[in-house]
Amino acid sequence: MMQPRNPDWKADTLAAMEGMATTATLGIRTTVLEPGFVECRMPFCPGLAQQHGYQHAGVVALLADNAGGFAAHTLMPKGAEVLAVEFKLNLMAPAKGEELIARAKVIKSGRTLTVSTIEVLALQDGREVDVALMQQTCIALLPKD
Amino acid sequence: MMQPRNPDWKADTLAAMEGMATTATLGIRTTVLEPGFVECRMPFCPGLAQQHGYQHAGVVALLADNAGGFAAHTLMPKGAEVLAVEFKLNLMAPAKGEELIARAKVIKSGRTLTVSTIEVLALQDGREVDVALMQQTCIALLPKD
Amino acid sequence: MMQPRNPDWKADTLAAMEGMATTATLGIRTTVLEPGFVECRMPFCPGLAQQHGYQHAGVVALLADNAGGFAAHTLMPKGAEVLAVEFKLNLMAPAKGEELIARAKVIKSGRTLTVSTIEVLALQDGREVDVALMQQTCIALLPKD
Amino acid sequence: MMQPRNPDWKADTLAAMEGMATTATLGIRTTVLEPGFVECRMPFCPGLAQQHGYQHAGVVALLADNAGGFAAHTLMPKGAEVLAVEFKLNLMAPAKGEELIARAKVIKSGRTLTVSTIEVLALQDGREVDVALMQQTCIALLPKD
Repeated sequence: MMQPRNPDWKADTLAAMEGMATTATLGIRTTVLEPGFVECRMPFCPGLAQQHGYQHAGVVALLADNAGGFAAHTLMPKGAEVLAVEFKLNLMAPAKGEELIARAKVIKSGRTLTVSTIEVLALQDGREVDVALMQQTCIALLPKD
Repeated sequence: MMQPRNPDWKADTLAAMEGMATTATLGIRTTVLEPGFVECRMPFCPGLAQQHGYQHAGVVALLADNAGGFAAHTLMPKGAEVLAVEFKLNLMAPAKGEELIARAKVIKSGRTLTVSTIEVLALQDGREVDVALMQQTCIALLPKD
Repeated sequence: MMQPRNPDWKADTLAAMEGMATTATLGIRTTVLEPGFVECRMPFCPGLAQQHGYQHAGVVALLADNAGGFAAHTLMPKGAEVLAVEFKLNLMAPAKGEELIARAKVIKSGRTLTVSTIEVLALQDGREVDVALMQQTCIALLPKD
Repeated sequence: MMQPRNPDWKADTLAAMEGMATTATLGIRTTVLEPGFVECRMPFCPGLAQQHGYQHAGVVALLADNAGGFAAHTLMPKGAEVLAVEFKLNLMAPAKGEELIARAKVIKSGRTLTVSTIEVLALQDGREVDVALMQQTCIALLPKD
């Protein structure tokens, strides 16, 4: 487990998550929250399907980016806000099933930048199937910035 | 302008676009459709904002991926379906404003893979501001596949 | 361990590696070769340093791409040639030390495309330090192609 | 043309380029140097070919990363050093020919981060052929950092 710089990391990351309209709209739940590791889940959203009825790749990216950003936030100093600088997503299988799961792990937590890897899986009849893989860079915005 | 392989490219790409639930849900309009070039627009969606009130990066990715996939589709052979293999998105400025605009340009249309660049802009008080830049790879799925 | 499709995977992947001029020029050694996993090492090359004396990011990319391509190749069918379609590299620490090590792991081995993750480390006074992380897509070129 | 922040941008960027061992080893020449735009060229290097005799993708990445880093540097403040944070490269055609050419254009020059697009072409019998496309993020390291 990685060492948080902010003693209030849990409350502060949860507050940032709850401040997002997207969380409520898509029903995203945070099911694991540890320093440097976050798991988020959302039910399949039929209104955001693509032409074959699978969840749109943008929604896969959204959930992965979300989990990655908050994983990065758990290790940032008190008062920091997190912004994604960039991400790269490989889509490996159709995003179909009851639920999407994103598991984000911080690989490097630097003073300014954080690099994370995020796996996205789909729950299909209770079984987890690999769907996508993201590599993401976030930046810490500090009050003085 | 690039040379389409499918004489019905326009009708076929429009049909694929209209088959997506996401198009109606987010109010995405296709405002330019040419061989190898697509422009899509969507109004700002407050329900999919992030913690600072800007459009979530995943929505920026969704619109860019959408425009890129359809730009790739305009140059694919008759009967091909398009799937994004992977994309990489750099976020350059907050996605705020009345409307998001994605402009996708095919850079290389190969037999199997297509590479595109997609610019995302935000309309802010009628002025276009650069928001993000995507580099995307799509694959053509042919009936025999 | 993943299941190879080619009974001669080991000999065929080794032959492809030995056919590369780069291998001899940079002194790249393959220190682990398993189905879906490859480790390559190269001594620090002072002639390919950047302005601070560290190994150029392009060399880090080269070693990672190399290991990833051959890891992908171990799982491809008999007769397939491997080509990298694209890769994304995050640079996390200066590439300095006696030796660079790339560890490539296949995440998804599809019929056409393979997705891999490659970690690059530097050996510094005998200790391994994380240097970079790559996410890569390769394509299998089959004789009929 | 973009506005440089450093009045000595040209001399300072040239000095950084000349401080790289790689420049001499590979015979890289800077053939265009403007604020926010750099063109670099290198002769085909047979010692760094891959298994089909083409230039190794890592060398394509090296030249692109090089041009991109220096294009970013032209717009950074006096005293800043440039480091690539990450890049993503799509390989579109074999890197063969007499010479490789990388053309880097800054898309966004921020206080901390710079985003650039770099096209790589090969000169084949005097004709330019598209080979690869990179999207890159660099960071400015300032003396106080």
